Amino acid sequence: MSESPRYLVGLVGTGVTPSLTPGLHMAEARALGIDYLYRPIDLTTLGLAPDDVPDILIWARRFGFDALNVTHPCKRLVMEYLDRIDPLAAALGAVNTVLFTDEGMVGYNTDTTGFETAFTTGLPDAPLDDVVLLGAGGAGSAVGDALLRVGVRRLTVVDIDRDRAFQAAVDLEARHDAVIRAATHESLPGLLARADGVVHCTPTGMHDHPGIPFSPALLRADLWVADIVYRPLETELLRAARAIGCRTLDGGQMAVFQAVDAFTLITGIRPDADRMIGTFRQLVADDELVS
Amino acid sequence: MSESPRYLVGLVGTGVTPSLTPGLHMAEARALGIDYLYRPIDLTTLGLAPDDVPDILIWARRFGFDALNVTHPCKRLVMEYLDRIDPLAAALGAVNTVLFTDEGMVGYNTDTTGFETAFTTGLPDAPLDDVVLLGAGGAGSAVGDALLRVGVRRLTVVDIDRDRAFQAAVDLEARHDAVIRAATHESLPGLLARADGVVHCTPTGMHDHPGIPFSPALLRADLWVADIVYRPLETELLRAARAIGCRTLDGGQMAVFQAVDAFTLITGIRPDADRMIGTFRQLVADDELVS
Repeated sequence: MSESPRYLVGLVGTGVTPSLTPGLHMAEARALGIDYLYRPIDLTTLGLAPDDVPDILIWARRFGFDALNVTHPCKRLVMEYLDRIDPLAAALGAVNTVLFTDEGMVGYNTDTTGFETAFTTGLPDAPLDDVVLLGAGGAGSAVGDALLRVGVRRLTVVDIDRDRAFQAAVDLEARHDAVIRAATHESLPGLLARADGVVHCTPTGMHDHPGIPFSPALLRADLWVADIVYRPLETELLRAARAIGCRTLDGGQMAVFQAVDAFTLITGIRPDADRMIGTFRQLVADDELVS
Repeated sequence: MSESPRYLVGLVGTGVTPSLTPGLHMAEARALGIDYLYRPIDLTTLGLAPDDVPDILIWARRFGFDALNVTHPCKRLVMEYLDRIDPLAAALGAVNTVLFTDEGMVGYNTDTTGFETAFTTGLPDAPLDDVVLLGAGGAGSAVGDALLRVGVRRLTVVDIDRDRAFQAAVDLEARHDAVIRAATHESLPGLLARADGVVHCTPTGMHDHPGIPFSPALLRADLWVADIVYRPLETELLRAARAIGCRTLDGGQMAVFQAVDAFTLITGIRPDADRMIGTFRQLVADDELVS
């Protein structure tokens, strides 16, 4: 009796129960005829703390999990418990995917590779001389690294927290041959006036954090605009940008491509990214109906 | 996007890695179009002790397992950690199936219900006035309870350990209105000479314990013979019994019906027992090829 491979995967983080990622992976696996079970392991619901991450790793391995995705607030702290870390993830200081292999637990970061593919696919030939990165948290760092890998020549990291912007800029500069600077929100008018594009990496515009991260008066038709918020897919920022003719990239693309890369690492099979994008849009639409 | 139910199940015990039960459940689920992942949690392989069972329960629940099957040496010790125990399992003092429900962890014993169904299906109208039960361990107790439920009037529990036979007989007598006695192997010639049937519940005849539990000279054509050993399905005992024309029941029937009952508890869906019998025979045959 032939046995097809079967995968067991979890998502570890606070408040991950409503995440669309498990459904996205499982729908694609089903389309590919792969048995694939992906369960949220929600620290909030379970009353667990980030301190419990080492125990989660031990028990997930014992129970035969093939992999875990890891999200806030565990992406950095998980690293010390792993046996090996992919150089890209190590440089970033953040792991979002852990594989349980015969050689031990191996960490990867598919946020940064996912944004890279989303960007080169969704905004091909976008000018890269001068880009503004708004938001210097974990997502901003992963996105900043991807932007520098695809060839951005001057990157300005903007954050309401000046120290955080500065630290992120220093970290990125240490690893990339580009001009990297830090700034605060007050500088945005001048920065955006001469930028080729802007990537928004703060929570502003999410259902829970409605609003727009900066005045739409600062947009120009020849500025490309990428948003990593994906609930909703059309944020106020993207709506304003599209209204005046900007090229845009929505947050669904990064969300899907980080899942594409994680799925590939876990199964060794490259999934159908276009189908996953369609699935993701459907999942978001269903989710909006429920919410 | 409609979401079909998905099940995650584990099998906890020592040396369970080669068990056929996970494959049996998954093949049936697949035939029914149900996503169902069933993983061995092998204490031996994992370097865990029976003392770790409470932690296994806690983490299995956290990781979203729907149920665990539990086998040697955990069937009794798991009971104290459960929130509720089915009366049949409580009376037996052994749980082989734990469901994680909204009301807590609930324990069942499908070994005893499984043997009951196997027996009434496989040996219908078997005379029940006088039956010999050979082997008073956990399996023997579960089988003894089932035999008394289906109407055996006189049951003799035989074990090489006189005290164990006596204790099993006392336990069974406390719960059933029947004549229950204990004996040792030396009494077998006399006991089998006047018995209607015999159920064999020791490891003798398994691949790892080859042999026959008593002399085939004690068999008679009008004695029915049931064996709970299923690797191989045709034990020396059954082969000898069939050679002289005895009605027989092999151990595969109990193995399948305990899985049928567990599957039903876990999913709420009664599987196709005939199909599972076919699957089981195929799994055993494949296993013999590999071994």
